Amino acid sequence: MLASWNEGAAKSAIVDFVARVTKEGGKDYVPPAERIATFDNDGTLWCEQPMQVQIFFMEHRIRQLAERDPSMRDRQPFKAVLEHDLKTIQDLGKQAVYQVGFAAHTGMSDEEFDEIAREWFSSAKHPQFGRLFKHLTYEPQVELLGYLREHGFKNYIVSGGGIDLIRALADEAYGIPREQVIGSSVKLHLEARNDRMVLIKTAEINSFDDREAKPQNIGLHIGRRPILAFGNSDGDLAMLRYTKSGAGARLALLIHHDDAEREVAYDREFRLSPLAEALDKAGEYGITVVSMKRDWKSVFDARLS
Amino acid sequence: MLASWNEGAAKSAIVDFVARVTKEGGKDYVPPAERIATFDNDGTLWCEQPMQVQIFFMEHRIRQLAERDPSMRDRQPFKAVLEHDLKTIQDLGKQAVYQVGFAAHTGMSDEEFDEIAREWFSSAKHPQFGRLFKHLTYEPQVELLGYLREHGFKNYIVSGGGIDLIRALADEAYGIPREQVIGSSVKLHLEARNDRMVLIKTAEINSFDDREAKPQNIGLHIGRRPILAFGNSDGDLAMLRYTKSGAGARLALLIHHDDAEREVAYDREFRLSPLAEALDKAGEYGITVVSMKRDWKSVFDARLS
Repeated sequence: MLASWNEGAAKSAIVDFVARVTKEGGKDYVPPAERIATFDNDGTLWCEQPMQVQIFFMEHRIRQLAERDPSMRDRQPFKAVLEHDLKTIQDLGKQAVYQVGFAAHTGMSDEEFDEIAREWFSSAKHPQFGRLFKHLTYEPQVELLGYLREHGFKNYIVSGGGIDLIRALADEAYGIPREQVIGSSVKLHLEARNDRMVLIKTAEINSFDDREAKPQNIGLHIGRRPILAFGNSDGDLAMLRYTKSGAGARLALLIHHDDAEREVAYDREFRLSPLAEALDKAGEYGITVVSMKRDWKSVFDARLS
Repeated sequence: MLASWNEGAAKSAIVDFVARVTKEGGKDYVPPAERIATFDNDGTLWCEQPMQVQIFFMEHRIRQLAERDPSMRDRQPFKAVLEHDLKTIQDLGKQAVYQVGFAAHTGMSDEEFDEIAREWFSSAKHPQFGRLFKHLTYEPQVELLGYLREHGFKNYIVSGGGIDLIRALADEAYGIPREQVIGSSVKLHLEARNDRMVLIKTAEINSFDDREAKPQNIGLHIGRRPILAFGNSDGDLAMLRYTKSGAGARLALLIHHDDAEREVAYDREFRLSPLAEALDKAGEYGITVVSMKRDWKSVFDARLS
């Protein structure tokens, strides 16, 4: 049971919470239908360093597109992405970079995108860790998702990342079905192509699923307030506070990336997704901080590569 | 098995389809995770005559609001709704009337709305049928939802009606959890009230879930193309065609309200939700038409009142 978690306050908080909400007749009992858990993805379920996997994928796609249109190599933010120019990418900010990534997929159907994403995930590797991107998931978190599922929870991903890229991976990597993924999205347009009706990705943003948009999208997609939420940045704070604001037992957790040896130590200085306010106010808001270094026995799953 | 359905082409189409997609090793086998079925609500799962239940609910709410602001009685569309002036309501059209209904709930949280809706459903009755609105569901359809569920399907509602009103009822009436309801929605705004974070309903439409918006919202919320879809009006045609456009076995069904004795006989003349193009082109698009009169042994469940 949660074998990759070290004994300590964080693991106890999780185990105690699950015991309380699943104890029939207990004062904190929650029926299975209401056991909703929401997880941020980047930095919470898998590695987001030195930049989010979404941006690595975008780099791959822009390299393909630049073969047909070499002028992209001289235009920002394509230039920065193709040159791994992290400073320029960070200066642009996550939303601006993602929007360009989304725009690069305009005109293809969600089903075509899914095939491209799956193909990429089957072979693309992280340059520093040398692992497949799909194996950059955190072993203790994959265990936690399974532990919650065994206790009747329904796990959702609520990510700032593009919804379609996460959906291509969520079932295999996390045991989370596509319909339990919420993310940033573009508007879809229904069109007839070759006598088939398909949903075409447009360049128009439907939702950038960060900060306040996370609880708002939880309201739209799920229609229930989560009883457990897990994040790692200020972009997750609204979701954590919304979760904690419900009646009855609630658990909000925040990963602190303080393990330079096994992953990367960072918080407020990571401009693509800073952790500052959430860390400073965790005590005040009743958020349990999980130290990667102290609370996790392992980070990545040694059986995967 | 589907005891409220008469033997005939419609019942056979359903039973044969379910047998094919669930037969392991068969050429049409579909894994359980991909067995998505989407149902329109008004006129497909329950009665929408002489006007949608959403509008009856709106009448109730406007009557409450008009006690505080009597001038509403002289303003359209409130006047028409309060006076059951169906001609004026039909002339306004469903979307315009619904939008006013949504606007009437601006400023309350989704959780407050849920309480109001549940209270109303507990006692409000349909003026002609004399049954509780929540018992205006069609017995053969509730059976069908259960039959699909037993065969590993995941049922969704995809309705033009307001998502929050349907969510207040879907579990009890259809065995469909809140998160499997897609509908028209307003934008939600996250606010702190009495030290709690709540989602406040605004007046701004997020999505009017009709026609092309139905498959688009299926893409957003589910991310899988349904293998079965059921509707009753031209507003459902895009969803039915989208469903039929997928590879492999697919089933699209359309209720024809042709039973003046047990319900109401109507199609193209019902201006709030006409059935014309979908009926004319059902053959061309491979849509199975279900005749209420011929194919249903019962309409409403005699055990409910």
